[in-house]
Amino acid sequence: MNAIEVGQKLVELCKANKNMEAMETLYSPDIVSVEAAEMPGLGREAKGLQAVLGKGKWWSENHIVHSQEIEGPWPHGDRFIVRFKYDVTNKPTNQRRQMDEVGLFTVQDGKVVREEFFYPTGP
Amino acid sequence: MNAIEVGQKLVELCKANKNMEAMETLYSPDIVSVEAAEMPGLGREAKGLQAVLGKGKWWSENHIVHSQEIEGPWPHGDRFIVRFKYDVTNKPTNQRRQMDEVGLFTVQDGKVVREEFFYPTGP
Repeated sequence: MNAIEVGQKLVELCKANKNMEAMETLYSPDIVSVEAAEMPGLGREAKGLQAVLGKGKWWSENHIVHSQEIEGPWPHGDRFIVRFKYDVTNKPTNQRRQMDEVGLFTVQDGKVVREEFFYPTGP
Repeated sequence: MNAIEVGQKLVELCKANKNMEAMETLYSPDIVSVEAAEMPGLGREAKGLQAVLGKGKWWSENHIVHSQEIEGPWPHGDRFIVRFKYDVTNKPTNQRRQMDEVGLFTVQDGKVVREEFFYPTGP
């Protein structure tokens, strides 16, 4: 699959709440995931499929998703961008918030090798 | 200015239809602008502020903008992403179309040194 096809499949799976399946089937074993902000105790980067799946599992276990809107992919060469909007409640804090971030994905040999998330950080 | 501040200023100016002013004040003389698709006779890359201003001038002279929606910036380190939606009529062809693309901007020393546009290409 080229970058556009990988992007379309990723959006399709995320819209169907199959985020873990998207990672398991579309991500390289050497995937690197980079956040805009430091994650408490985790830094900004997660390396390798197991670490990235772990981050996804942590997120889904700690949030109730009330609604979501996923747009894209917008492709450019071997990369594509997807927008993710989530209305979520963080379970530990019981705080509800609107997430709005975009992901920049890089594809090599038909697999996502890098994902970078863009969103405002800090106050 | 850091990347977030440059991004906020760029969005502010583009929303006010001051796209040329945004480029003149926020872009490096060595700006490189990269399209997702080949532009007829121009290839995918424009290098240098004069070439990029020329591309902007060509675009604005050849399109009537009926409405626009500009969202962002979403920052990540020294980069930020902006979404541009335009309802335009191409003057030479008189065809009206909905443009929806995202730009990935890279900042160095307070100036944009690279802009890359993401959108579907081809059929």
